Amino acid sequence: MSPQPPLSVGHKILTGDRATGQLHLGHYVGSLQQRVALQAHNDQTILVADMQGLTDNGNTPAKVAGNILNVVADYLAAGIDPSQTTICLQSGLPALAELTMFYSNLVTIARLERNPTVKNEIQGKGFGRSIPAGFLTYPISQAADITAFQATLIPVGDDQLPMLEQTNEIVRKINSLAGKPILTECQPMLSNMPRLPSVDGKAKMSKSLGNAITLDASDADIAKAVKAMYTDPNHLTVDAPGQVEGNVVFTYLDAFYPDPAFVESLKAHYRRGGLGDGKTKAILTECLQAMIAPMREKRQALIADKQYLIDVLKAGTEKAREESSQTLTQVKQAFGLNIF
Amino acid sequence: MSPQPPLSVGHKILTGDRATGQLHLGHYVGSLQQRVALQAHNDQTILVADMQGLTDNGNTPAKVAGNILNVVADYLAAGIDPSQTTICLQSGLPALAELTMFYSNLVTIARLERNPTVKNEIQGKGFGRSIPAGFLTYPISQAADITAFQATLIPVGDDQLPMLEQTNEIVRKINSLAGKPILTECQPMLSNMPRLPSVDGKAKMSKSLGNAITLDASDADIAKAVKAMYTDPNHLTVDAPGQVEGNVVFTYLDAFYPDPAFVESLKAHYRRGGLGDGKTKAILTECLQAMIAPMREKRQALIADKQYLIDVLKAGTEKAREESSQTLTQVKQAFGLNIF
Repeated sequence: MSPQPPLSVGHKILTGDRATGQLHLGHYVGSLQQRVALQAHNDQTILVADMQGLTDNGNTPAKVAGNILNVVADYLAAGIDPSQTTICLQSGLPALAELTMFYSNLVTIARLERNPTVKNEIQGKGFGRSIPAGFLTYPISQAADITAFQATLIPVGDDQLPMLEQTNEIVRKINSLAGKPILTECQPMLSNMPRLPSVDGKAKMSKSLGNAITLDASDADIAKAVKAMYTDPNHLTVDAPGQVEGNVVFTYLDAFYPDPAFVESLKAHYRRGGLGDGKTKAILTECLQAMIAPMREKRQALIADKQYLIDVLKAGTEKAREESSQTLTQVKQAFGLNIF
Repeated sequence: MSPQPPLSVGHKILTGDRATGQLHLGHYVGSLQQRVALQAHNDQTILVADMQGLTDNGNTPAKVAGNILNVVADYLAAGIDPSQTTICLQSGLPALAELTMFYSNLVTIARLERNPTVKNEIQGKGFGRSIPAGFLTYPISQAADITAFQATLIPVGDDQLPMLEQTNEIVRKINSLAGKPILTECQPMLSNMPRLPSVDGKAKMSKSLGNAITLDASDADIAKAVKAMYTDPNHLTVDAPGQVEGNVVFTYLDAFYPDPAFVESLKAHYRRGGLGDGKTKAILTECLQAMIAPMREKRQALIADKQYLIDVLKAGTEKAREESSQTLTQVKQAFGLNIF
């Protein structure tokens, strides 16, 4: 198990996931574990981002709608406690759309097109000139999400820093219009955890690419995925020295094996020769199976009780609606539109 | 008084005005009279478009906020009857923002940039590359306005036809996603009335340019405006033949004088010579003073009773909230997001 960053306390934290697929070990190690650790000592809101999921799935909305409860089940299975963390649905919060409309008047198209994260994503998705308007403008919508909850701390990868810059620009403009600080600037909480590679060591991990281990993977799924894992292509016999860097099995052992000293001893053995991939993969398989089994069982029970998942999401959404409406009222006041 | 187009009946009509200034005679002849005529036999909703007003006034919101009740007073003074017409405030209708978010995923930036109306306006406003996102995307927001009320007939100038095309494109996409016709395509109701020129015959009429006669203009304001009116610059003596075309005094007489035959006789006289501008202007002044006096008085009484204006707008907004929420529910269903 990798060392965790020192825990933040007393913050208003906003995180979330696009509801476009089941969560997997990449999410677990990259964010879910952190959220579980943070929830007791912070005011944490998790947004199931269905609206953001639609920004590049406008014509395939079932991909989003069909994954909302999957994501909620993943949260609960991973240890998110709805009595400590507010889990809410983006499309259930009208204030987010309204704030987006207000903020859209304060951000230029040129500014959006300069956003390096969006630029990369537009390239990556091959939109060309056919970018949906909602996709180009989603940093404005993210600013609405963050400010609606007056979030002070946002766990992000460093590729998301431009989003927070954009948010804080909007915060300053609104506060200047209001003549007083009604919105709070946010700070990034950067993870010290490198992105977990996919099983094949190549593309981004994703269930649809078949290179991810989901939180409900069976023992057989796990064994199969680890068996297919990319190691050191030059490590041709057990006796030969092997390379640990870029060897996905060791990256996963670093991320998940509970005893780091043991992993270090395995690495040394592998480097000097005499340790086969079969053996390292067996150790990893067993470790992942032991870790995932209780999540899988919890998740299966949750998915069998859809109404419970809906109730959890509904309760969280109602709480979030209250909070986000308060922010909207203040922003409307800043624009002078508190007529009723 | 110019002939009115044959009256439409039984339609759901949506119209509105950006809340960025008092209304003036251009609005009166271009739309207010028509709305008064339509209200008895159609289901008419008028949107006070404060959110759209912000799309190019994001940094000067007081210009919008300060004109909302002015516009409501103008409506009532001009004869809009709140028991027949729903007068509502755009920012008071969350469903419009939510529909805009949904539709934004179905319209590309390239499509928005091709919109000739928006193209012209961007040029006219000198935005260059600094177009606010909300301005480029306002055709999507207009589609939200129109579809939220399932409007079938939209009174527009022909410069607004591209907006209705965009709206109907969105309608077809949503209906295709839903697998059934949940939204209604709209049709333009083109006015046969040419745009009323400004007093100086040059720029667009606008109170801030000082070339418009507002609905609360005093007799002195009217006399002064008509005195400054552009006529025929080559009509140097009373005896000389004058030109009627492009002569703003005659355009206004055509638009407002109750007896068209008398205006025709004036035109003939002016053309053959012997009719001075002093005389035609006196006739127009008297005509406009007689027409505006009752509106001005009604408007002054209304503006003195702000709470009444707020009550009218609030009641209309509540009714409109009901209607627009129903449409939102159906659109959310089309996207599969009716989880609660």
